[in-house]
Amino acid sequence: MPNYAIHLRTESSTAAARADLARRISAVHARATAAPPSFVQVIVHPIVGEHFIAGEPVDPRAVFVHGHIRAGRTAEAKHELIVGLRDAVVAALGVPDDLVWVYVSEIPAEQMVEFGRVLPAPGQEAEWQAALPDDVRDRLARLDAGIS
Amino acid sequence: MPNYAIHLRTESSTAAARADLARRISAVHARATAAPPSFVQVIVHPIVGEHFIAGEPVDPRAVFVHGHIRAGRTAEAKHELIVGLRDAVVAALGVPDDLVWVYVSEIPAEQMVEFGRVLPAPGQEAEWQAALPDDVRDRLARLDAGIS
Amino acid sequence: MPNYAIHLRTESSTAAARADLARRISAVHARATAAPPSFVQVIVHPIVGEHFIAGEPVDPRAVFVHGHIRAGRTAEAKHELIVGLRDAVVAALGVPDDLVWVYVSEIPAEQMVEFGRVLPAPGQEAEWQAALPDDVRDRLARLDAGIS
Repeated sequence: MPNYAIHLRTESSTAAARADLARRISAVHARATAAPPSFVQVIVHPIVGEHFIAGEPVDPRAVFVHGHIRAGRTAEAKHELIVGLRDAVVAALGVPDDLVWVYVSEIPAEQMVEFGRVLPAPGQEAEWQAALPDDVRDRLARLDAGIS
Repeated sequence: MPNYAIHLRTESSTAAARADLARRISAVHARATAAPPSFVQVIVHPIVGEHFIAGEPVDPRAVFVHGHIRAGRTAEAKHELIVGLRDAVVAALGVPDDLVWVYVSEIPAEQMVEFGRVLPAPGQEAEWQAALPDDVRDRLARLDAGIS
Repeated sequence: MPNYAIHLRTESSTAAARADLARRISAVHARATAAPPSFVQVIVHPIVGEHFIAGEPVDPRAVFVHGHIRAGRTAEAKHELIVGLRDAVVAALGVPDDLVWVYVSEIPAEQMVEFGRVLPAPGQEAEWQAALPDDVRDRLARLDAGIS
């Protein structure tokens, strides 16, 4: 139940590599947090304006991932998550790791709506999914089966 | 005194529908928090890159709203807010509710500048507005009158 | 070790003015927090969709800066930072201050990766830099020398 914004110059990667990145991010999130991959949203935001570090233009291969996850994960889970996100970028896009930035912000579950429903606290996903309309639950189940 | 980022594929809605959405969001925020609508900023961010859930492309009608509000609202106000934001998207854009995601993040008032001024704590808006330059205060008053 | 997102309509400023803004933001952040300017990332996000306050279109010169910094700064440092960011926008872009919005969100250092490495707590930057690979450390040193 996170959203990951990927900021990068799209001319430095292929659409296929970015789709691979999205799948890897879904898998990393699911592994670190034990949440189903069907909850992982990824939006690619092409950088089209200027991009600076210390006021100087940045290498066009640089990637900035900003995730927003439900609050309440353990420090270990969050560490596994940010390191795994960095490794996913390196593996999917072939970027040197020193060009990768990853931030993870937390939001209380009760301030998040996904699939039109206010989110459950971490650990109560099963009850939440059981209460979804049949068609939405089936859609999520198909997504989870596709990732596995 | 919030900012709402609306992420969507603009080809799935009209500019008029998005303007309607902005008005509805201003009204929902004002109703849930008792803050004046003139404080509500909405920026439409067209999704032009890839958009995935569970690593699979998402329905192009999907909408992700990410609000940043002043910290300190009650749980009831925040609940009314996120549910109202979801309903505003459904009403303005005609999107099925299971394609709507809404996140609300909080920021302490003293870490926010609007109209060039550091924000007051919730409840002290009137004093803050009274201290604005005349032309800015008049501009906000006209905006509030337009919304009503 | 922050990221600053600058949201504006690029037709209202020149690329040179935005580069000046990025340098000013790096300097403001370094002065307010005592962190090296080489840690300051700025991404310009052109506003290409609609932009509203109170449901009405906004002056096209309006600028919204959203920073994400490491948690743990003093109230004084954060105040100097947001006021300095506002002043940087006014000075670099020639925008009236009442068209400037600035938000600063905080993230715990251990939820941030920059240059491929999980960040240190504020105050432990020197040890962190010392542990970087030689080429990355040299790159940052050159950036810091360029800013002064």
